[in-house]
Amino acid sequence: MFFASDNSGSVPQQVLESLARANEGYAMGYGGDALSQQVTDKIRTLFEAPEAAVHLVPTGTAANVLSLACLCPPYATVFCSPVAHIHEDECNAPEFFTGGAKLTLVGDADRMSPEALRAAIENEETRGVHGPKRGPVSITQVTERGNVYSMDELRALTAVARDYGLPVHLDGARFSNAAVKLGVTPAEMSWKIGVDICVFGGTKNGLMGVEAVVIFDADKAAEFEYRRKRGALLFSKHRYLAAQMDAYLTDNLWHDLASRANARCDQALQGLKGAGVTVLNDTHANMIFFEMPRAAHRAVQEAGAVYHLWGSPEGPDNEAVMGRLVFDWSLEPEAVSAFVAAVRAAV
Amino acid sequence: MFFASDNSGSVPQQVLESLARANEGYAMGYGGDALSQQVTDKIRTLFEAPEAAVHLVPTGTAANVLSLACLCPPYATVFCSPVAHIHEDECNAPEFFTGGAKLTLVGDADRMSPEALRAAIENEETRGVHGPKRGPVSITQVTERGNVYSMDELRALTAVARDYGLPVHLDGARFSNAAVKLGVTPAEMSWKIGVDICVFGGTKNGLMGVEAVVIFDADKAAEFEYRRKRGALLFSKHRYLAAQMDAYLTDNLWHDLASRANARCDQALQGLKGAGVTVLNDTHANMIFFEMPRAAHRAVQEAGAVYHLWGSPEGPDNEAVMGRLVFDWSLEPEAVSAFVAAVRAAV
Amino acid sequence: MFFASDNSGSVPQQVLESLARANEGYAMGYGGDALSQQVTDKIRTLFEAPEAAVHLVPTGTAANVLSLACLCPPYATVFCSPVAHIHEDECNAPEFFTGGAKLTLVGDADRMSPEALRAAIENEETRGVHGPKRGPVSITQVTERGNVYSMDELRALTAVARDYGLPVHLDGARFSNAAVKLGVTPAEMSWKIGVDICVFGGTKNGLMGVEAVVIFDADKAAEFEYRRKRGALLFSKHRYLAAQMDAYLTDNLWHDLASRANARCDQALQGLKGAGVTVLNDTHANMIFFEMPRAAHRAVQEAGAVYHLWGSPEGPDNEAVMGRLVFDWSLEPEAVSAFVAAVRAAV
Amino acid sequence: MFFASDNSGSVPQQVLESLARANEGYAMGYGGDALSQQVTDKIRTLFEAPEAAVHLVPTGTAANVLSLACLCPPYATVFCSPVAHIHEDECNAPEFFTGGAKLTLVGDADRMSPEALRAAIENEETRGVHGPKRGPVSITQVTERGNVYSMDELRALTAVARDYGLPVHLDGARFSNAAVKLGVTPAEMSWKIGVDICVFGGTKNGLMGVEAVVIFDADKAAEFEYRRKRGALLFSKHRYLAAQMDAYLTDNLWHDLASRANARCDQALQGLKGAGVTVLNDTHANMIFFEMPRAAHRAVQEAGAVYHLWGSPEGPDNEAVMGRLVFDWSLEPEAVSAFVAAVRAAV
Repeated sequence: MFFASDNSGSVPQQVLESLARANEGYAMGYGGDALSQQVTDKIRTLFEAPEAAVHLVPTGTAANVLSLACLCPPYATVFCSPVAHIHEDECNAPEFFTGGAKLTLVGDADRMSPEALRAAIENEETRGVHGPKRGPVSITQVTERGNVYSMDELRALTAVARDYGLPVHLDGARFSNAAVKLGVTPAEMSWKIGVDICVFGGTKNGLMGVEAVVIFDADKAAEFEYRRKRGALLFSKHRYLAAQMDAYLTDNLWHDLASRANARCDQALQGLKGAGVTVLNDTHANMIFFEMPRAAHRAVQEAGAVYHLWGSPEGPDNEAVMGRLVFDWSLEPEAVSAFVAAVRAAV
Repeated sequence: MFFASDNSGSVPQQVLESLARANEGYAMGYGGDALSQQVTDKIRTLFEAPEAAVHLVPTGTAANVLSLACLCPPYATVFCSPVAHIHEDECNAPEFFTGGAKLTLVGDADRMSPEALRAAIENEETRGVHGPKRGPVSITQVTERGNVYSMDELRALTAVARDYGLPVHLDGARFSNAAVKLGVTPAEMSWKIGVDICVFGGTKNGLMGVEAVVIFDADKAAEFEYRRKRGALLFSKHRYLAAQMDAYLTDNLWHDLASRANARCDQALQGLKGAGVTVLNDTHANMIFFEMPRAAHRAVQEAGAVYHLWGSPEGPDNEAVMGRLVFDWSLEPEAVSAFVAAVRAAV
Repeated sequence: MFFASDNSGSVPQQVLESLARANEGYAMGYGGDALSQQVTDKIRTLFEAPEAAVHLVPTGTAANVLSLACLCPPYATVFCSPVAHIHEDECNAPEFFTGGAKLTLVGDADRMSPEALRAAIENEETRGVHGPKRGPVSITQVTERGNVYSMDELRALTAVARDYGLPVHLDGARFSNAAVKLGVTPAEMSWKIGVDICVFGGTKNGLMGVEAVVIFDADKAAEFEYRRKRGALLFSKHRYLAAQMDAYLTDNLWHDLASRANARCDQALQGLKGAGVTVLNDTHANMIFFEMPRAAHRAVQEAGAVYHLWGSPEGPDNEAVMGRLVFDWSLEPEAVSAFVAAVRAAV
Repeated sequence: MFFASDNSGSVPQQVLESLARANEGYAMGYGGDALSQQVTDKIRTLFEAPEAAVHLVPTGTAANVLSLACLCPPYATVFCSPVAHIHEDECNAPEFFTGGAKLTLVGDADRMSPEALRAAIENEETRGVHGPKRGPVSITQVTERGNVYSMDELRALTAVARDYGLPVHLDGARFSNAAVKLGVTPAEMSWKIGVDICVFGGTKNGLMGVEAVVIFDADKAAEFEYRRKRGALLFSKHRYLAAQMDAYLTDNLWHDLASRANARCDQALQGLKGAGVTVLNDTHANMIFFEMPRAAHRAVQEAGAVYHLWGSPEGPDNEAVMGRLVFDWSLEPEAVSAFVAAVRAAV
């Protein structure tokens, strides 16, 4: 009954096997090996973008902040959700890698609305050089509160960015979960709707630590490479990043893993219906945000469920507390069933 | 006959097995898992430093520049060799992570002499705030030109740093090779002679991509953690870094791997005696820098040897060219023998 | 009828005379001249802080961001009002000079409340290294919306900072106007209530371009000097900064100038009573924020009044628009009278 | 007998008068005033560059580092003399403003030779992303050791930059002294020979603190303005910078002041002939670097001469010590005569 994070589960056997296969003989470093090149080609094919630059990095933060650094000069501002990972969970890494750019928080909701985005953009560059220049729009799909933007919602946001000539970054740490949920292809959820740099996440979906940054604007490709190196993020033994990603791309493993995670989420949603739990997010991929009485929370935890709680476990029994369930690929259906049963017993 | 780099060989079977063992069930992220804690303890034991802070990072550049950022304010300068990796091979990463500190190049030799170090330090802070403040001394052991500082040489350098109250960083990407060569313990080659932050390298000695940063000054420990996170260098699935390092620390694997690499280097040195090749570095761990006539170089390469050449393969036959041989743990004795034979045939 | 800004009026004759007096013969550069030392001593006396470090810089932004850089590591966050000058009007200079720190906006009002400050501080450092570390509290006195914190309000804010061990920066671009309004001494409005670094503004109160940064924590003094130099903000011909500040400190010119400005503001407030104008700020030093119908605004502007308008001059006649009146020392009472008359005629 | 620096003399009466004239009534801030616009136009005319962007800043360091920041991405390197002001006397300001770029020191002489420049450029970008990308060439005219590049020498350097497509920055803190010496126009010594951004210095040549940055590549103009603001270097009361520069441009004051300074230098050179003093720089504008016996140095200082000494005044009497004489516009011929007499008496 482990729902604390999708960075806590094991990796599938295919990844270990791919690492073992890649561990043969000598290979040129820093991405100069054959496997790294093959992976680049496979991602270009997957994204239907034969000219795209593709770079692998070991963390999601790295993927995001190197992308933003290519899109945002230090005297500009990034438009993002107030709960975006880049704002709340990267310890000023975007500010660091951009050389001191600002983040402008759009609206007060998890999902940015096109209206709020337009208002936030309009509010900048009204004071000449006194405020920052307008910079990129950063969209998180799946959002940090577990929602999936619809394709129409995404198109509405990128349309606003386009109105102002601003580039678009997609934080796709859970790209696969969203694509599965929406039933769209990687190309459809990226360059076809106006995304300039897309993070195709692997770590939260079953890899040890690899994200692919797919850059559709070839002008940014060389800059990205310099920034990755000076960011201490270029692997010398690059084949071990490539090997993980190669497994991910083989037989649509990325799609399969995300489908499994999303299925566990659906199972839980079904199970929780009528169980006295309020589900807070309205669309779902592999996360559920919920409220239930604190006493029930305590009982569920005592039954062995592990998940993240917003706020304190101590306090009045009847007060509602907010929790987050994250479903990863490796979760067993039995664990979900047990959790549902525990909730039903507790509420 | 692959001598191009120690970042090109495979990793030992123990590392793959350790990854597989660590890949069981759920584990808390970001270093909160049990294995990560065990590895910290093992490194403290190895370094005889029960209070040391220990942090794992995925690249050697990361280990160096996060360390320097903790030791060097942005208005100071780092004292290092003119061929130091931090100066020549990290694409301004030290300048980036320190927020714009400078590197002051000490003397004109691979190995810094205490006299040159003293002169370089004396030359700074003579102009008040017009020049940078004196910052840390960075020592590379094994050096970038394949030399191993003796313990006396190291002590002489750290004594100069101490005279000026400057902290000492040890770039130990090849720490193990040096320790094996000198027959000293990790403690003897670090805090016992005045090193404040030591990089205990794993990547060049058989791991996929893990370095341990050992911080003997506990005041810097918290700062390091914030800097690692905002540097996009904190692994969420930290257990896979820990697993590699755990294998490295088990049954003295680190020592065994370095011994193998050094032995291949010794084998080559013996074989090249009297072969018409000038060896340029005077002490050795796992690298040989050499000169031989260009024609011989071409012949050896045609025989299948792969190594790094300084300068061009094109030019007068008799002109001496400089090459670098790097011996990694996975190299077979037969490859060395074949190389020696090829050289003898060519010169 | 010029009320657009207090950076637009002339400087008093005493400043020109002081510059002329300082322009005799040779003087050592970079603050090594006698006049610069005298000015330091005078400010220490004025602030009753004989140990304080005092540094002159040419702009208010410089004074703020160098101060914050001394108080805030790059992985921390500054707590400030959502309309603080450092957030809205310095084009990412705080982010730049701190090396990438973040600004956390406190509450949604011009004046921070202690409750909102406490809540904002509590919200940070709840996520370990994932969010920024708590950094300094920055208070603007007079605020950007023309309000003056009472001494009790200031003490309540610094008490919250002290509870968390956080340093306090006072943006005193209009320090003199506030001190005059409250009838307090510089010491009372700075270190005596827990301010660690105080900006004693001169530019908005009659100087060409000089601010004094008064650092009560001597440990930060040397760092400030290095940061000023590498910030390209150390004047070589420092005597011309010192000469302006010397005039400012002589015969309490600073107090006299601020009194004049505040008196013009009071005059306007009296005149506008019952004139159909809504005054938005509730305490006043030298600024009035107001609303009046757009048609009246147009009429007043046609009569020759110059001031800053939030929003557009175009739109429905009856709609209220917001304007800002800033009163500087050089304003004639007749100009204020004329403005009041124009408003009364227009509304 | 004051020869310590050209930042120590007084400013001419015209500058004070211009400040007084500008001190009338209200003026829009941040360069929006009429005088600031007039100054821009006058500089465009002076440089025969009607499209150039012109920006005023208060310090020479500011002028240099903002220029370099526009020309050099953080992952690149600036090519400059090993004694360049940007390397030796700006406390890491170039590293700070560029966001962490490196400086590559060209050759070992004060004046860069085209051969040394070419060699330095060739040496970078040979290691892919491991070393920095090639960035701008920075030329200091007059050099820090008092030499004036000939027009041919300048053209040879800019030709090398052009061969590699690298932009050229001219540190013209003593631009006027050099132009007077060479008898060339500002246009001839800047864009006509391939300079992209030229610093037209005022501070060392009689202003209180103003430098004009002349940007011939209009694409960089907007970026400069943002960088200046976030660098805390945009004056609100900009008219007082403009007033100084306006005086400087009126009746060729800049040329007149530099001519006076250079004439004093010539006078000293004539006087020192055969006086037992070794002059070290071979071309001259307003500086002399010299060697004389330490005993003579002491006697000259006792006679009242003030200048900068490299090395210690203590030591063997007969040992040669190096000194620097800087001649500023305000120096009286009698002071030079007295100095020469003191030297002749002492040696």
